[in-house]
Amino acid sequence: MIKALEKDLADNFDIHFNDHALLDEAFTQASYVNEHPNQGLKFYERIEFLGDAVLQIIVSEYLFKRYPDMSQGKLTRLRAAMVCEASFSEFAKECRFDQYIRLGKGEELSGARERSSLLCDIFESFVGALYLDQGRPVVEKFVRTVIFPKLDQGKFDHVIDNKTALQEYLQRHGDVAIEYRLLSEEGPENDITFKVEVIADGKVLATGMGHSKKTAEQDAAKAALSDIRAK
Amino acid sequence: MIKALEKDLADNFDIHFNDHALLDEAFTQASYVNEHPNQGLKFYERIEFLGDAVLQIIVSEYLFKRYPDMSQGKLTRLRAAMVCEASFSEFAKECRFDQYIRLGKGEELSGARERSSLLCDIFESFVGALYLDQGRPVVEKFVRTVIFPKLDQGKFDHVIDNKTALQEYLQRHGDVAIEYRLLSEEGPENDITFKVEVIADGKVLATGMGHSKKTAEQDAAKAALSDIRAK
Repeated sequence: MIKALEKDLADNFDIHFNDHALLDEAFTQASYVNEHPNQGLKFYERIEFLGDAVLQIIVSEYLFKRYPDMSQGKLTRLRAAMVCEASFSEFAKECRFDQYIRLGKGEELSGARERSSLLCDIFESFVGALYLDQGRPVVEKFVRTVIFPKLDQGKFDHVIDNKTALQEYLQRHGDVAIEYRLLSEEGPENDITFKVEVIADGKVLATGMGHSKKTAEQDAAKAALSDIRAK
Repeated sequence: MIKALEKDLADNFDIHFNDHALLDEAFTQASYVNEHPNQGLKFYERIEFLGDAVLQIIVSEYLFKRYPDMSQGKLTRLRAAMVCEASFSEFAKECRFDQYIRLGKGEELSGARERSSLLCDIFESFVGALYLDQGRPVVEKFVRTVIFPKLDQGKFDHVIDNKTALQEYLQRHGDVAIEYRLLSEEGPENDITFKVEVIADGKVLATGMGHSKKTAEQDAAKAALSDIRAK
């Protein structure tokens, strides 16, 4: 099983482990160790403890440097969305790690292999093992492949507002002038509809509508992001 | 103020900042920025976001390597005791960081300088700034001076049991055979008092008593730790 995993890692990520026992450990659950008591096996939990902190610092440092003007509050929300069970369990499946977990029979029958808490643990323990075996630069390369592209794909936009998300996206390579311009106010006084357009470096990206200027701007930013990502 | 801080850092920790503005930022609260709106000041929160993750990884990696047989559960409890507001605010005071925080007048009057949440924030932001300015090895040296000695002094023993704490202490430089030997059982059947001694590499360290063997062993381990630390 570990041979197949090593082939997967080499083919997909150009990762080549030196310490095969460490990789074994990272993919072995306690239930499997309990069923094979005389093999001197270890389970992943300690390495997961380390991997969790490794992911925290790599994601934190990346966000801190990529978004030099983002507030601590937004940075914290973004990090929490990236470094969490829901995200890590998805990444584990994308990396096909679920196939390689060594589980006891009872755990297997109870569907543990599909359980997001286990998948999250395994993602963290893999990263912990990679860090111990190959050092931080190789982990960073892996994270740049697996996690960071999701930022540009808008996967974590829900935790920051659309205007912020659009600004962060447009300004990722440098300063871009972003402007929201009011186009019209229509309807009766107690039910006005505002229409705005969002303009980046003089180019109109999209328009948006809403019952306040603020919601119209958010709507325009959302439309602009969606257009950009459809391209 | 920052000059005095820089002198303190140089004298006490042999730390010499390159980027003085970064150090300023790390010690400046939002309330101070608000009172000086035209000075282009920044407040510490973003750097604190980074510093928190830096401390997590350094403490995690240290515990992981120092205690190769400690379970994830105990590692996690120990890390939580070390990386928390109560600890960091103490460390901040020990480092005399409280003197150097730039606060707005209202915050000063309300006693913010003594508030443990602020002291904790400043400890983290200092570490974040140190990491950005000097890199991880210098932060590790600082943490080795300020945080890690507290482990040997027993500051965090309350989160792991005494037997574990004694074992971790005795085995910090290599394997030591630790044995608990029952010396006596005395008293009526429903109120037996057990007496045990704890032995390390053949040498009796201490004795302990309790109404079960387990509590007597914990008592002996506690006495041994207290003897060791009194020396």
